[in-house]
Amino acid sequence: MARKINFYAGPAGLPLPALERAQKELLDFENTGMSVMEISHRSKEYDKVHNEAIELTRELLGVPDNYKIMLLQGGGNLQFAMLPMNILHGGKKADYIVTGQWAKKAFKEAKIVAGDNARCVCNMEGEKFNRLPRPEEIKINPDAAYVHICSNNTIFGTQWKNWPDTKGIPLCADMSSDIMWRPIDVKDFAFIYAGAQKNLGPSGLVVAIMRNDFLEMCSDKLPSMLQYRIHADKNSLYNTPPCFSIYILRNVLAYNKSIGGLGAIYKNNLKKGELLYGCIDKHADFYKPFVAVKEDRSYMNINFFLPTEELTTKFIDEAKKNNMVGVKGYRDVGGIRISAYNAVSVSDIEALVSFMEDFVKKSG
Amino acid sequence: MARKINFYAGPAGLPLPALERAQKELLDFENTGMSVMEISHRSKEYDKVHNEAIELTRELLGVPDNYKIMLLQGGGNLQFAMLPMNILHGGKKADYIVTGQWAKKAFKEAKIVAGDNARCVCNMEGEKFNRLPRPEEIKINPDAAYVHICSNNTIFGTQWKNWPDTKGIPLCADMSSDIMWRPIDVKDFAFIYAGAQKNLGPSGLVVAIMRNDFLEMCSDKLPSMLQYRIHADKNSLYNTPPCFSIYILRNVLAYNKSIGGLGAIYKNNLKKGELLYGCIDKHADFYKPFVAVKEDRSYMNINFFLPTEELTTKFIDEAKKNNMVGVKGYRDVGGIRISAYNAVSVSDIEALVSFMEDFVKKSG
Repeated sequence: MARKINFYAGPAGLPLPALERAQKELLDFENTGMSVMEISHRSKEYDKVHNEAIELTRELLGVPDNYKIMLLQGGGNLQFAMLPMNILHGGKKADYIVTGQWAKKAFKEAKIVAGDNARCVCNMEGEKFNRLPRPEEIKINPDAAYVHICSNNTIFGTQWKNWPDTKGIPLCADMSSDIMWRPIDVKDFAFIYAGAQKNLGPSGLVVAIMRNDFLEMCSDKLPSMLQYRIHADKNSLYNTPPCFSIYILRNVLAYNKSIGGLGAIYKNNLKKGELLYGCIDKHADFYKPFVAVKEDRSYMNINFFLPTEELTTKFIDEAKKNNMVGVKGYRDVGGIRISAYNAVSVSDIEALVSFMEDFVKKSG
Repeated sequence: MARKINFYAGPAGLPLPALERAQKELLDFENTGMSVMEISHRSKEYDKVHNEAIELTRELLGVPDNYKIMLLQGGGNLQFAMLPMNILHGGKKADYIVTGQWAKKAFKEAKIVAGDNARCVCNMEGEKFNRLPRPEEIKINPDAAYVHICSNNTIFGTQWKNWPDTKGIPLCADMSSDIMWRPIDVKDFAFIYAGAQKNLGPSGLVVAIMRNDFLEMCSDKLPSMLQYRIHADKNSLYNTPPCFSIYILRNVLAYNKSIGGLGAIYKNNLKKGELLYGCIDKHADFYKPFVAVKEDRSYMNINFFLPTEELTTKFIDEAKKNNMVGVKGYRDVGGIRISAYNAVSVSDIEALVSFMEDFVKKSG
């Protein structure tokens, strides 16, 4: 079967060369006579993969030396709890900006951990998360130990382009659905974390990046697996890591580097957005975008509605016939959602736009 | 390169047919035109794999209907904390039997969570963990909410063949290094958990089996990812599971079923033990077993010492030349450790024994 054009929201498509590399050596990793899945995590062969994944993350994102990179388990969801468990001890407080379903979940978990010491300082749910807050809508408390945002709203399709001004308070971001979509200045953050399963690799792996002074604030009274300090001190080898997922991460990052790094990837993503939003805006009476403010639109997840439910169903069915999967909107939103992560190519989007143009002609 | 004979303690060898199946369909899973890594965890294609992994676990281990099977992340180490976090609320207490490094770690994490409410009721460290306790050495408290054991001591090579009599108190077992090595009666346990990376699949996945009444005792006040009840209620799809690891688990279990299930596997393991311990006992002056009591010897991890450090190094080097890896003992123990998990075949052990016989002849 020909490879599909994969618009799943996550787990999502991965770069073909990264998978081909894995397939080729699945039974014999670098002449070891074993699969990379079968090798001790304390072996020199695995160690090389592990460190390469970390070093490529540092190189591609430009992570400064005063930040630790950790490879963790439990998805973004466990981070929602680990962050407040580690930082909000001794009565410390934190501010949450709620711009979508995942930001809301992060806040909910922080409430479980810290009760009223976790505060929501901006909630866009009243407007169905269809835009991001303007600076004057965010009231950060000066006593906050950190401010938490979700950089890209996977479900509703908004994406921060400029970070909120926290006035020096450490900024923490869940970047699960847009990490490495473009170059960023890591120095703007005290903590970045991302589930791998959108832009980085398979599910079951989280990449976390923490500034040393923030790491110093972390509790050392928690169960070992929940302590960032232990994972950082042990180079994410305190326990057996998810070795195969880290191996695929390494393959994806090595591929990303080979095509020119985040600069080249950003250029592709801008082009993809231009093509797809261009088509949507051109047919604004037919393809109605969910997001109300153009600047807030996501380049990773693009939501729009068709005039009727019947047309939506037809769109999904015909997309499938045209080799495209994963275009159905999230259950709470409906309509169409195109997830266009890094592994989605410009030509994939060209194929989609051509399909959308035809669809308007036939049905508009 | 020819496949190695893999004696790693974990991650360890996997059945070749399970890996070949993965390799074959790595770029195109069941005619989807996508890798199983690239498919939404909410898709019907992934759902089938997920449920098959759970059902095969139920079938192979004979898990009764009043037990839930969960697929979790964070390794055995996170379970060391989750179990007391979930059960030891409201002043509840638990008893730990410490027979090795992992049992000791489980107790240490329980102490972090529950302080003095986690009690060590038997500690074999004074004898360097070289045997299991006799029944009269274990003093279980009648007020314990559970008793915790580690069924196989990976590092020192002891293995419980008969469970301690808890007089009706729920028994919980870390079976990371020997789950499915033989048929067991799951009804003897309230909770069983196992990191996948020894007998079941790749690292980054835990199989957990909990009796419904024990599940009812679990806290609903914890962060969501740390609540067993949520994972059980959501069929381990509360968040994105480690899909590829679960897929490999499915492949391994399907293979295990195809060769006759745990009855056949047990027969192989008994044969392997008979061959290897037979050789050790035959040359008792040369190969000195670490474990002091024959009945306590593990069929999964076999530790022995050679007369000198030089011979140990030579043994490791020559084993490597004979296509065998992972025979070096754990750093705290030294000597030789052979891990002979399910994927190690009788003929692998025959090759090892033949090598060991030659080695004695040359060096003894």
